[in-house]
Amino acid sequence: MIGRLNHIALAVPDLSSATALYRDTLGAKVSAPIDQPDHGVTVVFVELPNTKIELLYPLGEKSPIANFLERNPGGGIHHVCYEVEDILAARDKLKAEGARVLGDGNPKIGAHGLPVLFLHPKDFLGTLVEIEEVAKAA
Amino acid sequence: MIGRLNHIALAVPDLSSATALYRDTLGAKVSAPIDQPDHGVTVVFVELPNTKIELLYPLGEKSPIANFLERNPGGGIHHVCYEVEDILAARDKLKAEGARVLGDGNPKIGAHGLPVLFLHPKDFLGTLVEIEEVAKAA
Repeated sequence: MIGRLNHIALAVPDLSSATALYRDTLGAKVSAPIDQPDHGVTVVFVELPNTKIELLYPLGEKSPIANFLERNPGGGIHHVCYEVEDILAARDKLKAEGARVLGDGNPKIGAHGLPVLFLHPKDFLGTLVEIEEVAKAA
Repeated sequence: MIGRLNHIALAVPDLSSATALYRDTLGAKVSAPIDQPDHGVTVVFVELPNTKIELLYPLGEKSPIANFLERNPGGGIHHVCYEVEDILAARDKLKAEGARVLGDGNPKIGAHGLPVLFLHPKDFLGTLVEIEEVAKAA
């Protein structure tokens, strides 16, 4: 069911120093910061040859990563995102196997403009998992 | 400097249920468990189209993931591994920029038979980072 690892998301306490770390110290290609007010984050994309790292910084007063950064003031891995071809079929299979889908169970449009769902970290080895529906390979 | 994301390593409290989760619930291709006594872990490789997830379970009495599992009894992301072409050049650059290299600073032969080093999580946004030297692309 799951396909590619779409990205790893890191919540960071200082976006410019985190960007400098990945750009200058680790020598990776990074994007400009992109505000995503609908998602409560500002994002910098780190482009690796085979996947992306997303550096997430809180935007606005109800950012979904604010609590995480309070618990992890130095930052940390917030979630990983796997691609699926059919998010409703994936959701139904996961629920049938006892996994908890967060929110109301209906996909939302995620940061890449594609349908996403989040899965409970206690059901996935302590890791918050996002699944994102991508178009089938041609 | 960093190239591909080689893998994400998850420390897991029960290897057979973690394997079943990735194989059956998430529908990914998984390997048989492989004991790596030199590294103090038993590993199951989850093969995604663009990278790997490694499920790590303690092996022996001095496993390097035992403390992590005590702090995270449900499991969690233990480290991420980025590929580099020249590990000594990477190490020297990282040290020059103030990053702490763990151990004695000399690469060890990692679980894939290639030279590796680990970098201090406090210098990398709360994430334990492994760098692994891979052959240059032809």
